[in-house]
Amino acid sequence: MEASEKVHTAQFLQHQLQEVITLLAKQQLEKSLVQRGPATNHELVEAVLHKQHQTRLQEKFALLHPADIAFILESLPLDQRETAWDAIKTDHDGQVLLEVSDAVRQTLISGMEAEELASVAGNMDADELADLAADLPKRAMLRILRSLNSTERMHLNAILSYQDNQVGALMDFGMITIRDDMSLKAILSYIRKLGKLPSHTDKLFVVDQHNQVKGILPLQRLLTHSPSLHVAQVMVTDFVVFQTDQDTNEASRAFERYDLISAPVVDKNGELQGRLCVDSIMDFIREKSDEDLLSQAGVTEEEDLFSSVWKSAKNRWGWLLINVVTAFASTRIIGLFEDVILQLVALASLMPIVAAMGGNTGNQTSMLIIRSLALGQITPANVQRLIRKELTLALLNGTFIGLIMGLLGFFLYRNLALSGVMATAMFINLLVAVIVGLSIPLVRYRFGKDPAVGTSVILTSITDSMGFFIVLGLANLFLLGK
Amino acid sequence: MEASEKVHTAQFLQHQLQEVITLLAKQQLEKSLVQRGPATNHELVEAVLHKQHQTRLQEKFALLHPADIAFILESLPLDQRETAWDAIKTDHDGQVLLEVSDAVRQTLISGMEAEELASVAGNMDADELADLAADLPKRAMLRILRSLNSTERMHLNAILSYQDNQVGALMDFGMITIRDDMSLKAILSYIRKLGKLPSHTDKLFVVDQHNQVKGILPLQRLLTHSPSLHVAQVMVTDFVVFQTDQDTNEASRAFERYDLISAPVVDKNGELQGRLCVDSIMDFIREKSDEDLLSQAGVTEEEDLFSSVWKSAKNRWGWLLINVVTAFASTRIIGLFEDVILQLVALASLMPIVAAMGGNTGNQTSMLIIRSLALGQITPANVQRLIRKELTLALLNGTFIGLIMGLLGFFLYRNLALSGVMATAMFINLLVAVIVGLSIPLVRYRFGKDPAVGTSVILTSITDSMGFFIVLGLANLFLLGK
Repeated sequence: MEASEKVHTAQFLQHQLQEVITLLAKQQLEKSLVQRGPATNHELVEAVLHKQHQTRLQEKFALLHPADIAFILESLPLDQRETAWDAIKTDHDGQVLLEVSDAVRQTLISGMEAEELASVAGNMDADELADLAADLPKRAMLRILRSLNSTERMHLNAILSYQDNQVGALMDFGMITIRDDMSLKAILSYIRKLGKLPSHTDKLFVVDQHNQVKGILPLQRLLTHSPSLHVAQVMVTDFVVFQTDQDTNEASRAFERYDLISAPVVDKNGELQGRLCVDSIMDFIREKSDEDLLSQAGVTEEEDLFSSVWKSAKNRWGWLLINVVTAFASTRIIGLFEDVILQLVALASLMPIVAAMGGNTGNQTSMLIIRSLALGQITPANVQRLIRKELTLALLNGTFIGLIMGLLGFFLYRNLALSGVMATAMFINLLVAVIVGLSIPLVRYRFGKDPAVGTSVILTSITDSMGFFIVLGLANLFLLGK
Repeated sequence: MEASEKVHTAQFLQHQLQEVITLLAKQQLEKSLVQRGPATNHELVEAVLHKQHQTRLQEKFALLHPADIAFILESLPLDQRETAWDAIKTDHDGQVLLEVSDAVRQTLISGMEAEELASVAGNMDADELADLAADLPKRAMLRILRSLNSTERMHLNAILSYQDNQVGALMDFGMITIRDDMSLKAILSYIRKLGKLPSHTDKLFVVDQHNQVKGILPLQRLLTHSPSLHVAQVMVTDFVVFQTDQDTNEASRAFERYDLISAPVVDKNGELQGRLCVDSIMDFIREKSDEDLLSQAGVTEEEDLFSSVWKSAKNRWGWLLINVVTAFASTRIIGLFEDVILQLVALASLMPIVAAMGGNTGNQTSMLIIRSLALGQITPANVQRLIRKELTLALLNGTFIGLIMGLLGFFLYRNLALSGVMATAMFINLLVAVIVGLSIPLVRYRFGKDPAVGTSVILTSITDSMGFFIVLGLANLFLLGK
């Protein structure tokens, strides 16, 4: 890929995007002008103009890195995206398809013929094909499978047999293996004969006749040691290796921890299966963090900026429906206490504050727990200390925020009993919130589930219900008797 | 670092952590037993036991990578962390200090003498020192500065002169520069003479006599081309280069886009200043995504799992106070309409649903916008299409969720007029929510501010207020007349 590395700043890319949009808009305009013009030669003129535009687009895209083309396609509305893709798809093979996000890839593939797809896929490595496989129509996939040789098919099947969160699904097969009885000189001339190393080759893998990894030979050592030495004398035997069925999250932590660029991946018997590279890990980290952030609001990665309105709606309704149901359930508490409100209407405007603050403090606790669980920092040995700390904090927060609540209540209604009840309700609800904020992620994690998923909805639903219940219940007990 | 690369799975680390905690607990126990025992020889016995434990801890830590030690320290409660750190700090120099999170580093440094710190820092590179600088006490820093030679001091000053979000702050000086008139053979023997390449060296930088970067020589090309060729014949002239004052976010996107391992960093005049490596970029991405996630709940990176209760409280109160104020402000709307509620108490339990759903839909929109802005996908040319799409979606959502709201209302209170008002209020509030969810991040971005910061608080505050206002206002207009 070095040949196409260019100095591309964000401004440069935005500028390119702007130009492409202008080109496409012009094309649209001319087309409509021709159609509205005199009826003769319509199709001929249109065809000539179309040809001109396609050529201009192709010239523009020819200068860009596939990742940059992917960026521009992602930023285009659906119809313009299709026009642009028509102009460029033949030149850039599958690289652009590999670089775009899943949602955009589906829109691009949906407009392509099976044969077209098969020819595009013809130039791909097994690990790249595996990335596309889920999005390809069956017919195209069969065609592609038939065109693969047996090694490629084996590689493809190997990757596809792993789950998304397993290391095996992210590995590639670009490793170079050597034996430990070779001299460095032999290795150097072997590499020269290869003529090209796979990208991200920072080390060679030393294997024995059973394909067991004995060590690694960093290029650095190859370059700095005497060529007369043997691999066994120079190789590193104390290295990081991953299992095909290992959790990718764990592997990404190891890449960060040990500053890896590439590492061997082995199966249960210790046989070399492939390698894991830092570029896949970076993509994984980015996708995971985007997903975590968007899922907080119930938007999935499936949705791109210009997904059709229907697709976006379907994507978001699930989450909104869950929220309607939980909001409905928690406000039913208020319904039970309608007579309390009628007797003391101030409660109607004060209780939402108690409910909301419960959600806020509970979220602070659960976010910290979720992140520490992801980092593997919480163990049976320290979890009690952690719980004690968060509870102490909750007592402090409850006193502080409860006091403020009481003062606000008194300031508004000059009613000491009312403000006492509000302060107490706030104190209790913040305690409840922290207990819930601790419990949900810890319990979910204990039972092997993702501690982040749904935590905030359940938490808010509980803190809302409890907030309303505590305020109205306390008011019912202590205020209405008077 | 190769020598200390080891096969460390998460289980392995958790196991190590467990063992350290057990060791520390045993030490604590024995100490208290001795103190409660017969009064003779207290100090002697204690000293012997202490020595024993320290040795055992040191043996344990000696086997671990600095990043793993950092992990264990981060997972220990404050007092145990200090004991463990006392046992190991001399052996592991500054590497552990560099690997721990900012909050934990402060707790470790606070217990160290200026001389101790200066000697630890003595083995560090300028870019590593720069990482620590903010956390070091002034006295230690002065001592360290005096011990540096002029190049090191220049490097340190260079890094410290950049802001956190600029590429210059993340660069290091481990680049190897060559001239284009050298032969590959000369380069090979030069490297052999060096004996060691800086980590992440995947390419050498080709500079002229003015220190301008002319090209790069990937190790790959060095290995695959004939040693008799000259650098000028083999080097790549079309490569990615960063500016010292460029935004780090942008650089991290470029690393992902072009799968870089290292890249030159130049100043405004094109002179080579340093290099940027993928490990720093990975750390940056991780920190940024942790920060984005935690800041959603108003928790800063300053807080670690076992920060003291007071520190945690101070860290979280700012956010909670803001939320009290906004919640208070928005519920004041309810206070204005107390007579409406007294006439139709059903509103008290129905209006929180309308307010909450506004927050939910608005958040979906703003999250998508914030993420697309971070990716640079939103431009003046496509923003109108985007706004149109989100507004159409809001009309759909409003009709759908509004209908559900109306049905729920009718189901509960058998009042057609009331359920009509609730449905309309929901429809209007969802429209308001999407407009606000679009505007806040776009406007903040327009004025050069981080679109993510505070968006959700402001959004929720507006959708709550508007939700209450619309429900109560409509009820006042259409329901109470009857």
